[in-house]
Amino acid sequence: MNQESNRKVILKSRPDGYPELSNFGLVEEPIPQPKEGEVLIKAIWLSLDPYMRGRMRDVQSYAPPVQLGGVIVGGVVGRVVEARTPAFAVGDLVVGPLGWQEYATSDGRNLLPVDPALGPLSTAVGILGMPGMTAYFGLLDVGRPNPGDTVVVSAASGAVGQVVGQIARIMGCRVIGIAGTQEKIDYIVKELGFDVGINYKTDDVRAALASACPLGIDVYFDNVGGDITDAVMENLADFSRLVICGQISQYNLAEPALGPRNVRLLTTHQARMEGFLVFQFTARHDEGRRRIAGWIREGKLKYKEDVVDGIENAPAAFIGMMRGENFGKLLVKVSQE
Amino acid sequence: MNQESNRKVILKSRPDGYPELSNFGLVEEPIPQPKEGEVLIKAIWLSLDPYMRGRMRDVQSYAPPVQLGGVIVGGVVGRVVEARTPAFAVGDLVVGPLGWQEYATSDGRNLLPVDPALGPLSTAVGILGMPGMTAYFGLLDVGRPNPGDTVVVSAASGAVGQVVGQIARIMGCRVIGIAGTQEKIDYIVKELGFDVGINYKTDDVRAALASACPLGIDVYFDNVGGDITDAVMENLADFSRLVICGQISQYNLAEPALGPRNVRLLTTHQARMEGFLVFQFTARHDEGRRRIAGWIREGKLKYKEDVVDGIENAPAAFIGMMRGENFGKLLVKVSQE
Repeated sequence: MNQESNRKVILKSRPDGYPELSNFGLVEEPIPQPKEGEVLIKAIWLSLDPYMRGRMRDVQSYAPPVQLGGVIVGGVVGRVVEARTPAFAVGDLVVGPLGWQEYATSDGRNLLPVDPALGPLSTAVGILGMPGMTAYFGLLDVGRPNPGDTVVVSAASGAVGQVVGQIARIMGCRVIGIAGTQEKIDYIVKELGFDVGINYKTDDVRAALASACPLGIDVYFDNVGGDITDAVMENLADFSRLVICGQISQYNLAEPALGPRNVRLLTTHQARMEGFLVFQFTARHDEGRRRIAGWIREGKLKYKEDVVDGIENAPAAFIGMMRGENFGKLLVKVSQE
Repeated sequence: MNQESNRKVILKSRPDGYPELSNFGLVEEPIPQPKEGEVLIKAIWLSLDPYMRGRMRDVQSYAPPVQLGGVIVGGVVGRVVEARTPAFAVGDLVVGPLGWQEYATSDGRNLLPVDPALGPLSTAVGILGMPGMTAYFGLLDVGRPNPGDTVVVSAASGAVGQVVGQIARIMGCRVIGIAGTQEKIDYIVKELGFDVGINYKTDDVRAALASACPLGIDVYFDNVGGDITDAVMENLADFSRLVICGQISQYNLAEPALGPRNVRLLTTHQARMEGFLVFQFTARHDEGRRRIAGWIREGKLKYKEDVVDGIENAPAAFIGMMRGENFGKLLVKVSQE
């Protein structure tokens, strides 16, 4: 690898259905030069997250799409290697949306400092970063679990799901996790202390939920949508809360899917279904980070990372995540710490 | 009509799709005799409401189904004509779930007194009864409108919708009503002061909503479900609230319908979709009744009733309501006040 170049992954074409390697391009170009007032950052950890699939579509959503030929969006932990502003010094550790590339410049407005005392650097885009904040605020502020509640989380071994389930346990809830391999089920039950694991590829999810949740589901943290969410809807407790975080089962469909019209079940159960974005809690991320870091120190909260080496391997890793092949928080190690 | 008999409408067979006259039976039997501790009530006003369709299904929901051969459920305003308990006196006006019949006995536990000073007797099952409370608490407590919000209500000239829209106007909101005839549209706009009316049978609802709600919909009060609700979902403002009250478009389908999987839009807009039942606010119904009665006295709130004479005409009127043929709160005048 030529250290004098910047390698970046661009969107070559928009995926139609599941993304393929041909949708991505690896480009090598000179390392960008920071302008006056800017810094140059060398990426260490790149986070791969399901939301990126949405940005590959040519539709305006809560954020603009990635342009064809543009670098794919993504959260990065990196180190300042050149500073043309007094706001940063060479060597500073920062986190920001710098994209799938080895080097990036920034005027600093989209950067936050990383405190290495809180945990390993990778956690700044993991359990102490966006996925962790998503789990913390989505579960506690949107789902509002009470002690004794039955909480179900889908994609339960993923970056968000594993944290949701463990925080729910800390809050005194019974926790049922849904995942797609026996290895993942073993992990969430034996390692993370979930009460029940359901393998959606081999179990009858409806029947398994009915059996695991005889009093109904009080809180559902939805990372997947589709038929699993329908099965949850058929097993709701009264006054239940459905936290709509992600709908990964729908992201890679070439055509929008149809599903049963089951909205009436919200009335039957006086239930609430609520979507959220982690940004709405930005002002309180410090609170989330401190509490999660505290639980990790106390041994109450574990996390699993799935690490891939080298920016050139990001596309294949991302495609695998879309198919549930990752196991834990998916990260690309872009360079040595 | 033989005043010595009780006529009642029973469920002869369960409707498959839209109810038909053959699903109902009119039975004449001796007036029931109250036991010690009971009262006999002569019905004056019977309320016909969409929820009754759900009770005709053989499924346990938030309330048990009507049994075959049993009298259909329904709210009734009546007068005590015989009292074998000191808790009531002959002549007392009461409201309770006495069903589609001319006379009923009760031990009094399901009866509430009617205060004729608050409004005409019929309003005890209308704007000052269940439909009015549904509108009041559903809009204010579940929908939480703010002044300046854009509020959309479907079935806008119905028993609940007409009240929702007017309360939203009182709260300083822009109000768009959706209904199915030009006469209904004229009524909600010209008589009730809604800002915009959309005729779902002749207008392109999606385009009309987009045009009427350029900043998006902040609150949607849903009485209908189905494609109209989908169109609302495609025009949401951020942090919007969808109040799921009824889904009448789905009640008469022989087979459950499929619709687009659009739950992700709740995340995109950080929106909340919440079902409720009027019973959850029972402890506060007095508050609702007093405020609504006050607005009526001040001329800020109007209501329209659609009155049918005679219990024998209840089935046809109910069937018409399922097809949107009523205009205003549908009532059966069972006997003279």
